[in-house]
Amino acid sequence: MATTVRLLWAVRRVGTCYQSASPAATRAIITNRYYNLYHLRELNTTTIMASGFVGSNSGLLFRQLFDRDSCTYTYLLADTATKEALLIDPVIELAQRDATLIKQLKLNLKYVVNTHVHADHITGSGMLKKLVPGCVSVLSEASGGDADLKVNPGDVIKVGAVELEVRATPGHTAGCVTFVDHAHGMAFTGDALLIGGCGRTDFQEGNPETLYKAVHSQILTLPDQYLLYPAHDYQGLTVTSVKEEKENNPRLTKSLTEFVEIMNNLGLPYPRKIDVSLPANKVCGLYSLPDDLAAELQKAS
Amino acid sequence: MATTVRLLWAVRRVGTCYQSASPAATRAIITNRYYNLYHLRELNTTTIMASGFVGSNSGLLFRQLFDRDSCTYTYLLADTATKEALLIDPVIELAQRDATLIKQLKLNLKYVVNTHVHADHITGSGMLKKLVPGCVSVLSEASGGDADLKVNPGDVIKVGAVELEVRATPGHTAGCVTFVDHAHGMAFTGDALLIGGCGRTDFQEGNPETLYKAVHSQILTLPDQYLLYPAHDYQGLTVTSVKEEKENNPRLTKSLTEFVEIMNNLGLPYPRKIDVSLPANKVCGLYSLPDDLAAELQKAS
Repeated sequence: MATTVRLLWAVRRVGTCYQSASPAATRAIITNRYYNLYHLRELNTTTIMASGFVGSNSGLLFRQLFDRDSCTYTYLLADTATKEALLIDPVIELAQRDATLIKQLKLNLKYVVNTHVHADHITGSGMLKKLVPGCVSVLSEASGGDADLKVNPGDVIKVGAVELEVRATPGHTAGCVTFVDHAHGMAFTGDALLIGGCGRTDFQEGNPETLYKAVHSQILTLPDQYLLYPAHDYQGLTVTSVKEEKENNPRLTKSLTEFVEIMNNLGLPYPRKIDVSLPANKVCGLYSLPDDLAAELQKAS
Repeated sequence: MATTVRLLWAVRRVGTCYQSASPAATRAIITNRYYNLYHLRELNTTTIMASGFVGSNSGLLFRQLFDRDSCTYTYLLADTATKEALLIDPVIELAQRDATLIKQLKLNLKYVVNTHVHADHITGSGMLKKLVPGCVSVLSEASGGDADLKVNPGDVIKVGAVELEVRATPGHTAGCVTFVDHAHGMAFTGDALLIGGCGRTDFQEGNPETLYKAVHSQILTLPDQYLLYPAHDYQGLTVTSVKEEKENNPRLTKSLTEFVEIMNNLGLPYPRKIDVSLPANKVCGLYSLPDDLAAELQKAS
């Protein structure tokens, strides 16, 4: 209990420091709050699908990375021309793997982005900032967490010519966002939409009605062929599409009332890492905490 | 010991039955032993990279699937127009997952293909033949195993307009093959080449010199940007490329002499599932065995 109090205090303290220390970083990202959706639709006509490609004429290098322990997917996206890159939802235990891959691919890691404040693993954001100096941590403003840069719905995160539109998809947590790459027809849905499922709604300000409405209005309205990449999968599936989820998702194809009933009766166990993950993730990872507290948390995780 | 003898007997018996029972199946695949490589080079100029896409103009639907237990990747490829599909290296415990996905995507599973006779897991081929009647199991002639259809280097396995060239890449086992999709710039390397590694060469007629030469002549001579999809990864990486392996593979960038030295001194433990996997995989899975023996093997695995 004493440890928890100490951690919460540390989180508040470090959080405040970070907020005041990094106002300049908020100008480092090119945001475009009212992104022209007609332009996006035009881009779709040249949509091609990319995975892991180096040197494609699509301009996108894309890698899906997996953590077997928490079943988390981390995504690396980069512009093949400028070599600028970003990571989505890295896991602390595998931050060194991610840093090595980035080095081997000769990329310049610009952003480390989280779809939300995770409860089931500690983000690798802080550690990556140490391993790859110069990269900027990103969280949504609505998450209530601290990061070098906070984004809002409608913002666009850019690495070279690769663009990710930020969409608000709350319900699993209040600050959950989905990142959409319209040019390549891909969306990174975090825990809002999982393959044949969705994130739980029973803690961290979760709300099944909010989740249902967000997924239906922000994700399932994307074109049918858009690929959806979630933050987790527990069956070894790697990707789905808007069409498939609209046809097959056993929860989200139900009515709102039925969905709420399902979500309120899942009876899931408490996430085993929540006590260490939440305070660490509120500041984008252990490595934004003072070393002694970080070591203590990592030991406990 | 008595069980082993009984199994070997069963494998021989069932193997013989299968060989004699399915000669017609050998005509079911369109093979083209001396495939025109100039034509393949032409196709490369329109290369686009596909992953998991439904409805792309690339004509390819592609899914990478993972088994967390054996760290095996299974690949689903289908022609989006004809809906014909094939699976590469399915795992028995996840055959139902694969069959469900095939059904949800409304695909017609034509071939279940293995890159080699696996020692670390039981193939899902036999079970998929039960779950999705009509599909044909495929192995290389050089594997010495039994399958409905045996392929040789230079053969092309086709599902609709999607074509996989069979290349001999022995060394991990004598019958290992790599499947190359030139139109989409992808190769499925089995255990011949892993991401930053390669399959072990200390059993199943393994030979480090053979492996080195096969990988260098049959895989690393493909264009730099070709994506390489292995049968396994233990770090959560999902894909690599010819360029990356030529630059970074810690074993295969060495000289032949150094490589042989490395491979002869790995000191790896005996694969825990080899005693049940090999006899089952020689006949493309448990479900090609009589039910009582299949049950016995599955229990032991």
